[in-house]
Amino acid sequence: MKLQTAADTLEWDERTGMPSGGGDYRAEQVSMLRGMVHELRTDAQYGDDLCRLIDDVAGQDPHSDESATVRELHRDWDRDRKLPTPLVRKTSEATVKGQQVWDAARKSNDFAKFRPSLENIISLKREAGERWSEGSDRTPYEALLDEYEPDASVEQLQKIFDDVRVPLVKLIAEIKDAPVQPNVSILEQDFCVDAQRKFSHRISKLIGFDFDRGRLDETSHPFCTTLGPKDIRILTRFETNWVPSGIFGTLHETGHGLYEQGMRYEWFGLPPGSYVSLGMHESQSRLWENQVGRSRAFWSHLYEETQATFAPQLDNVTLDEFHFAVNTIRPSLIRVEADEATYNLHIIIRFDLERQLIEGTLSVADLPAAWNSRYQSDLGITPPSDADGVLQDVHWSAGLIGYFPTYTLGNLASAQLYDAAAVELGDLEAMFAQGNFKPLLEWLVEHVHRHGRCYSGSELIQKATGKPLSADALVGYLQGKLRPLYGLS
Amino acid sequence: MKLQTAADTLEWDERTGMPSGGGDYRAEQVSMLRGMVHELRTDAQYGDDLCRLIDDVAGQDPHSDESATVRELHRDWDRDRKLPTPLVRKTSEATVKGQQVWDAARKSNDFAKFRPSLENIISLKREAGERWSEGSDRTPYEALLDEYEPDASVEQLQKIFDDVRVPLVKLIAEIKDAPVQPNVSILEQDFCVDAQRKFSHRISKLIGFDFDRGRLDETSHPFCTTLGPKDIRILTRFETNWVPSGIFGTLHETGHGLYEQGMRYEWFGLPPGSYVSLGMHESQSRLWENQVGRSRAFWSHLYEETQATFAPQLDNVTLDEFHFAVNTIRPSLIRVEADEATYNLHIIIRFDLERQLIEGTLSVADLPAAWNSRYQSDLGITPPSDADGVLQDVHWSAGLIGYFPTYTLGNLASAQLYDAAAVELGDLEAMFAQGNFKPLLEWLVEHVHRHGRCYSGSELIQKATGKPLSADALVGYLQGKLRPLYGLS
Repeated sequence: MKLQTAADTLEWDERTGMPSGGGDYRAEQVSMLRGMVHELRTDAQYGDDLCRLIDDVAGQDPHSDESATVRELHRDWDRDRKLPTPLVRKTSEATVKGQQVWDAARKSNDFAKFRPSLENIISLKREAGERWSEGSDRTPYEALLDEYEPDASVEQLQKIFDDVRVPLVKLIAEIKDAPVQPNVSILEQDFCVDAQRKFSHRISKLIGFDFDRGRLDETSHPFCTTLGPKDIRILTRFETNWVPSGIFGTLHETGHGLYEQGMRYEWFGLPPGSYVSLGMHESQSRLWENQVGRSRAFWSHLYEETQATFAPQLDNVTLDEFHFAVNTIRPSLIRVEADEATYNLHIIIRFDLERQLIEGTLSVADLPAAWNSRYQSDLGITPPSDADGVLQDVHWSAGLIGYFPTYTLGNLASAQLYDAAAVELGDLEAMFAQGNFKPLLEWLVEHVHRHGRCYSGSELIQKATGKPLSADALVGYLQGKLRPLYGLS
Repeated sequence: MKLQTAADTLEWDERTGMPSGGGDYRAEQVSMLRGMVHELRTDAQYGDDLCRLIDDVAGQDPHSDESATVRELHRDWDRDRKLPTPLVRKTSEATVKGQQVWDAARKSNDFAKFRPSLENIISLKREAGERWSEGSDRTPYEALLDEYEPDASVEQLQKIFDDVRVPLVKLIAEIKDAPVQPNVSILEQDFCVDAQRKFSHRISKLIGFDFDRGRLDETSHPFCTTLGPKDIRILTRFETNWVPSGIFGTLHETGHGLYEQGMRYEWFGLPPGSYVSLGMHESQSRLWENQVGRSRAFWSHLYEETQATFAPQLDNVTLDEFHFAVNTIRPSLIRVEADEATYNLHIIIRFDLERQLIEGTLSVADLPAAWNSRYQSDLGITPPSDADGVLQDVHWSAGLIGYFPTYTLGNLASAQLYDAAAVELGDLEAMFAQGNFKPLLEWLVEHVHRHGRCYSGSELIQKATGKPLSADALVGYLQGKLRPLYGLS
């Protein structure tokens, strides 16, 4: 774990201002450290010990810290050992190179340049999926999904995603023709970056981020990383002419950070002190970004201060106008710029396409056309170029297949968890209006964070909310907030 | 090397803003990585290989890259193996704890609290010195010196230091009573930290620091660290009411950084791509800080810009007044705040005292009295407390014995190298006045940086300047600059 977090620290540094010349050497360093971690994780003696221990804990409470530790470490080890070293090495080389090629291809808007790399990556990931799924009832794509969302099935995802897509496509269309529309231009004024920086620090602290156990920095692609049991780094970015970028980026990453800070640090590096799945991680970031951060109550508490911070830009903007503007819904080309309603449509397209790529029912050559056709049918827009279309995301070039669906799983879980918390705690919005975010955070720590990997993601949702994950809460939340805002009945 | 620079990166991070909660875990991480490095460096097979190679290169040009690589790696290995593991471990524990105890003792101005720790450290370092010097003609103190300044002898140092001390004590006394004195208060105004930050970046770049292969950050105790062949980090600090701190701290650390950037990166991590000694490293930082940065020509080029940067503070300050103020000479208690003339007196005191501690001719119990007596005789002041006296430096608590003299060796070498460069290149000051620092930097790269450890420090000085290191250049430089400034004949 210490080696792994050392490598994570080197990567954090790489993304917060490492000199450009440092890249090659840093890549070698990180790869060496990761290799050492891999060696330790696949050590034969370690595997033997785990296999013996797994018999020892059979019959014990499966959710106890001890059972979970043995079960989950065994699961990780079992996955690792199923991949032959040459495949791991080839995948690592292909994805390092893949990201460079993707970056160049995107810049020159030339998908053909990226195509051979992607074909290679898809074939390597397919092989990994086949090896992982061998002898189980999982498909190769599901086995890839397991990497990020251990117990999700394609059938279940397709069902829930359908339940999301149909009402959202309808709602988004209604919003497009709605009688009232927000004035987005108020967010596009010249906002002082230094003021944004201070404000971000302030709201991160306000919702509960502990700066004695973490820090907030700047980077080009925001993220959150855990460098030690009491050292959680969140990273955001600021745009002068688009103030939501910094504010909601910070709330989002703070949500990730709160999850990491909410785990039991004495279990650091072991399953009871680790996040359960990427979907659950994303549910925490989305909950603070959207359910909290885009609520009227949040801004009613902060708006006077916000106006003072960004004077004179917001002098003539009312709280209602501001709140409406940060809830703008508008189909757009780029996933990372999408609002919370259309975002899920971006994800569902990627989920469908990457599954077909792994299944072999879609070729990489046909991918750009399939992409554009889905954007037209689902979002009503066709990308003018591959750079703004199929080449926009780094994920596939980095070998992250099965990763995208976790974003929408996170959105679904955030809404469902928020509803359950409200049932138990009462009027959360009234608390936000007082600047009181502690009850909500404590509820999340109690029902999600502190359990680490003692329960699976779906067990945790069931336990915390009393029902399995479904589309209901998210659809209900978006309808409930957006219809009145846009003057829809 | 990759493990070592990984540990260095973790330490850089620790000193540039790691959350306070991260300390314990980080210490474990770094210690684990350093332990792994030590294991690799003392591996038996590695030693056997080196011993075989050293026979292979016998008879070859001793300054070739290959010869130097084998010779210097063998030297390092030979030193490492002479220390038994328990001694290394005990020293490491004693110095980690020693620094904590020192810090507490300094804060409470209580030398007695630190005394047992220091006695233990001195005895451990004496043992190391004895083991290293066994069977050689070096004394134990010289063997400790070898760690930082591989070929310095006490006799030679004493001679040169005497040659420095006598004229400097006299010059400093004359300056004290000189007819004209600088107005230091112009540097103690309220200088905007953000302006200082930008200005530091500017001057670092101006003298040649390559920001594609390095960066400049802030910390509480400035330093320079090399995290990869093209990733050199310099760190400075800014004080609102003392603008020289940021300016000369930056120039100093940039000097270190230029040395690191001037080495051949294809030899990174091996002797031909490593610095030859701490004294030589310090000569580079001092040369840019003092010979360049405190010259009138440097400021004549920059002063208009400086005034604009720090308006209105410097509006009514002339170039000559500013230049005189940054060349203030004034005996003071604290080494790190000392000017370039009195600085050497601070060092010579420490050199004499630490040598006596190792030789056993001075006991730790008698150290504070010896310290105060030397400050009175050499600098004419007696520290009012041990906190501002014998407890002011971290070095001894960290086991750094033999380190202090390298500071003055650096000052001596900086003056001698500068003179040699001027002989070869012509009027350097005329170049500075044009903002042209490239010829000087290229000369240093050619004569110092690129040789790495292919020559010893004294060989390099002889080769670059045509004579052995002496006090002449430094004394001449200080007399030549300071006498006219202070109106002394």
